[in-house]
Amino acid sequence: MAQAPLTLTVPVGDRSYEILIGAGLLSRAGERIAACTRGRKALVVADANVMEPHGRVVLSQLRAAGYAVEELVVDAGEETKSVGWLARIWDRLGSMKLGRDGVVVAVGGGVVGDLVGFAAASWLRGVDFFQVPTTLLSMVDSSVGGKTGINHSTGKNLIGAFWQPRLVLADVDTLATLPRGERVSGMAEVIKYGVIRDAAFFAWLESHVEAVRDLDPVAVTRAIHESCRVKAEVVGADERETTGLREILNFGHTVGHAIENSAGYGAIRHGEAISIGMVVEGRLAFGRQPGWTPAEQGRLEALLQRAGLPLRVPASLGLTLAQVQDAARSDKKNRAGTVRYMVPTRLGEVVNTALTDHEVAPFLSEAGIDA
Amino acid sequence: MAQAPLTLTVPVGDRSYEILIGAGLLSRAGERIAACTRGRKALVVADANVMEPHGRVVLSQLRAAGYAVEELVVDAGEETKSVGWLARIWDRLGSMKLGRDGVVVAVGGGVVGDLVGFAAASWLRGVDFFQVPTTLLSMVDSSVGGKTGINHSTGKNLIGAFWQPRLVLADVDTLATLPRGERVSGMAEVIKYGVIRDAAFFAWLESHVEAVRDLDPVAVTRAIHESCRVKAEVVGADERETTGLREILNFGHTVGHAIENSAGYGAIRHGEAISIGMVVEGRLAFGRQPGWTPAEQGRLEALLQRAGLPLRVPASLGLTLAQVQDAARSDKKNRAGTVRYMVPTRLGEVVNTALTDHEVAPFLSEAGIDA
Repeated sequence: MAQAPLTLTVPVGDRSYEILIGAGLLSRAGERIAACTRGRKALVVADANVMEPHGRVVLSQLRAAGYAVEELVVDAGEETKSVGWLARIWDRLGSMKLGRDGVVVAVGGGVVGDLVGFAAASWLRGVDFFQVPTTLLSMVDSSVGGKTGINHSTGKNLIGAFWQPRLVLADVDTLATLPRGERVSGMAEVIKYGVIRDAAFFAWLESHVEAVRDLDPVAVTRAIHESCRVKAEVVGADERETTGLREILNFGHTVGHAIENSAGYGAIRHGEAISIGMVVEGRLAFGRQPGWTPAEQGRLEALLQRAGLPLRVPASLGLTLAQVQDAARSDKKNRAGTVRYMVPTRLGEVVNTALTDHEVAPFLSEAGIDA
Repeated sequence: MAQAPLTLTVPVGDRSYEILIGAGLLSRAGERIAACTRGRKALVVADANVMEPHGRVVLSQLRAAGYAVEELVVDAGEETKSVGWLARIWDRLGSMKLGRDGVVVAVGGGVVGDLVGFAAASWLRGVDFFQVPTTLLSMVDSSVGGKTGINHSTGKNLIGAFWQPRLVLADVDTLATLPRGERVSGMAEVIKYGVIRDAAFFAWLESHVEAVRDLDPVAVTRAIHESCRVKAEVVGADERETTGLREILNFGHTVGHAIENSAGYGAIRHGEAISIGMVVEGRLAFGRQPGWTPAEQGRLEALLQRAGLPLRVPASLGLTLAQVQDAARSDKKNRAGTVRYMVPTRLGEVVNTALTDHEVAPFLSEAGIDA
């Protein structure tokens, strides 16, 4: 018998919703979704890898709860966040005549959640959307915040909407089917939440990082809950990125994105790049933030390493300093030739800092990005 | 020297915005838009008929106000509300690298406003959108309410978003270039606002309908202002169609849409169909609503007629009762085989009424829709 799930409310006004986190959630997905909706027609979308073990359970649960259900299998991978796939989902919603009380369910990682969330946001100007994240990264990141969307040939996530799900079911049992590398990658965002806002959570991770990584159900449930809580606090205070608070979530991401973009999609996992980004952006605090010393940096790097995350760019990627700095500049440009970084002031707080390429170069070099 | 424009605030929370209504507004469009925005990059979209006389003015005004401006000419007509045209606008926004502080301006009627509004809603999850309606219908209808969207092969307006403009500039001078039939068609919605919520406005129209139709600047400005005020009150109380109030706007539209759909797109103007729809739905009140007698119906029909609108379906359309009732049923179906109609209770109020085809048939027949 599974424990009762942990519950977290994401406070976004009249679109507030709950995230349930725990083991065995999929087996009651139908009744939980049914409790939030009037209509009894649903579309379930997943990629082929996820539809088979997990989407299938959601489908049968929804049928058992009285829904007329259709399923749509999409390609796996970032290329699926396209106008073409969006239009295919719209076509299916049209052919099944999904009405305003209809239900759209995304089962999978961030790609499927982003794509399907935007389809739900834009069908009839918004229908009920449910998220069943099956990766650690999507449980702690994209399941909170309401960002949905697709890529455009000129950039990632350029087309989309803010659209909050009605409910998120984060079933930690699904993580067992995830390749170990993906699980480790998700740990980077978990650790990030400690650094940017919660020193106590960081300290808890120092005692439990291996248990979380190895999917001890109690530990991983708590880690996801604390992560979502931090993100929900931030998003609740700045839903549409208007007050600036939400940018603290970018800790490690200026450098991390620059590494991802320079390496080319798929050459390095998101969490691995963010891990290296946090190492670099942490060190940027030296001499600038008296509350962040080599002692705090040492704790951060030790924790990343225990989680299985890299601290330096693998030489095999062959990244040059110019490549990475160009990518950072085009992503997070600021006035007067500087780039914005989130830099820690102490464990539990980061601050927006504009720095020149010259100031940042030595730290990229330390991380294995050579001239 | 033109009069100062009338101003109306549409109260939709932190997305509230103003509609300016009057003559000569286009000649100061640049500075008015600039007063609402930080960025200085803009895309102006219009169809070829509108770009030449009016879009051109907006473009040069924006340039004079310091904007880097691009223009995009779309096809005229309902077919333009398509995924293909939406993607072309996204492509242009991508190639011009329009950022979060960028500006998108729609110049034209409802088709361009709906399409471009949804492109603005979905680019970067929402950028500033300005509407310059150049038809009477779009001034009094689509400029208030924030409904944006495109059509899908399975139905009209199935894909879209609620996205409020930052400002609407309703320049009544642009109406002079509108074919007379289009102007007359727009009068149907103006008269509707009197019937559904404002008997005093209805009475004012009884004294000024010819002046409005013939574009007397003071009269047409006031008529647009009062129309937008009524719609803004309704939309402000029910922005996302959740309380039911917004459905009073559908007076005349159950029958009107059914006529439009049965006749095929383009066979009858929207306002003409709505005029006939109001005649039929008004008569449905006889015997059901003691406050709506042949006297009120007579005032409604006289006013529609003076505006130049039809009271009966032209025989040339060859519509059958079965066609129209089938179309009404698929559009506004209700429980137990009834269809929802908005029926007047008195001048200034309408109420949702579920009626069987059998109850409605005689009134459709009176309107020239034969068995």
